[in-house]
Amino acid sequence: MKFGRFEHQGRVFFGAVEGDRVSELEGTPFDRYEVTRKRHALSALKLLVPCMPGNFYCAGLNYAAHIEWANRRTGGNRKMPEKADIGYRSANALIAHGETIVIPADSPGPVEFEGELVAVIGKKARNLSESEALDCVLGYTLGNDVSERAWQKQDRTLWRAKNCDTFKPMGPFIATGLDPMNLTISIKVNGRPAGEYSTDKMLFSAQHYISRISKYMTLWPGDVVWLGTDGATEPALEDGDTVEVAQKDIGVLSSRVTRAKLR
Amino acid sequence: MKFGRFEHQGRVFFGAVEGDRVSELEGTPFDRYEVTRKRHALSALKLLVPCMPGNFYCAGLNYAAHIEWANRRTGGNRKMPEKADIGYRSANALIAHGETIVIPADSPGPVEFEGELVAVIGKKARNLSESEALDCVLGYTLGNDVSERAWQKQDRTLWRAKNCDTFKPMGPFIATGLDPMNLTISIKVNGRPAGEYSTDKMLFSAQHYISRISKYMTLWPGDVVWLGTDGATEPALEDGDTVEVAQKDIGVLSSRVTRAKLR
Repeated sequence: MKFGRFEHQGRVFFGAVEGDRVSELEGTPFDRYEVTRKRHALSALKLLVPCMPGNFYCAGLNYAAHIEWANRRTGGNRKMPEKADIGYRSANALIAHGETIVIPADSPGPVEFEGELVAVIGKKARNLSESEALDCVLGYTLGNDVSERAWQKQDRTLWRAKNCDTFKPMGPFIATGLDPMNLTISIKVNGRPAGEYSTDKMLFSAQHYISRISKYMTLWPGDVVWLGTDGATEPALEDGDTVEVAQKDIGVLSSRVTRAKLR
Repeated sequence: MKFGRFEHQGRVFFGAVEGDRVSELEGTPFDRYEVTRKRHALSALKLLVPCMPGNFYCAGLNYAAHIEWANRRTGGNRKMPEKADIGYRSANALIAHGETIVIPADSPGPVEFEGELVAVIGKKARNLSESEALDCVLGYTLGNDVSERAWQKQDRTLWRAKNCDTFKPMGPFIATGLDPMNLTISIKVNGRPAGEYSTDKMLFSAQHYISRISKYMTLWPGDVVWLGTDGATEPALEDGDTVEVAQKDIGVLSSRVTRAKLR
């Protein structure tokens, strides 16, 4: 099943997506819902971010080839993480499929994509074992952890490197019934392949992350756990580009890129 | 004026607090409101966290004496920050005045308080100058940035060091009309003074932080900016303790402390 969140004539609702048709839900996939007979053409609806997370978790480093690439590129010496320590991002920065990433006018760059699998929590949960962990997941969506590398290096925290307005495209839909450890994520910039990896290369599994978070924190419906990216994240994004993150069951998360003008 | 958020007989509402009386608001202080004639005894209401922030910003290091103390204590060598780089905390961890901080069973400790002034954003804002910055602030409340120091040292991120369930007491009320740069914050543990400082010692002012955040991120009603703590943060919190953060216009944010049992 594929869920999306939509706006139509000022109303916001969840829908079940089949091909280019959407059936409105009464209720939400995070609680109870019924699939109604109200149907829409997908193209007639405004697509929203599939959920607004109360807590936005993000695995910074979860694939070896990405860490090795980043070290080569920056001359850095980041070690492989020994533990699944989770980071945070800002819900502020989320944009939906089809919206525009705005690079701040004063960004030295490069600004790069990071295509990621995102687990969407569906049920309140605490203290889950790894074997129970996926029971609280509603489904999976895609995220683009857009990153301003100069600020990532200069600043003491990741605030503007990762969380500028528009820096967190997420969507298009939440797909249920997937094995998060066996998906192929691919990235294109201006239609040209810019990376592809399998989620079976995660250093710490989705199960492990979710179980570990739940030992200390209650997971809530709508919370999201971004699971990291693999490989290189080039070419850098420039004004006028289009960047796509894709997985065949979830769909394509596409974003245009612009650069704000100096004022 | 002092605003609080309350629950009574299953209803949640904002109120204007005067002494031990609360007048219900119709609407919210983040939008339009009217003070109604529905009055309650403060003691008859359940006090909630004064707002649930969409974005939870936190200045990690904003007072010299706290950084110097932490360096002496840990043998560390943290420099004074050169820029106001903001961090994030999890809304998940918020608890109201009067609720209980639960130290996880496996915490090596010490677990310490950090009493902080908190700016509560009242209006959507972007690109504010420092002289405009406080215009978007509804008022100020208090926060206790409870910190597990072993995890703060061990982990790659601050996730469980700072964001375990119950680790972020905030409240009791939002007071308007204060000068954030001239307030005295005091902390008590079990009734004994454990620290007092003036917010005029901030390395980067509330105005500077808010202006700087707003250059890259839209501030939204209900967002909070925790402004850091000064000085030592001892004694460590133990099972059975009570910790209070106080400022005379905002009130006293009090929390009991327990330790979870090993299971």
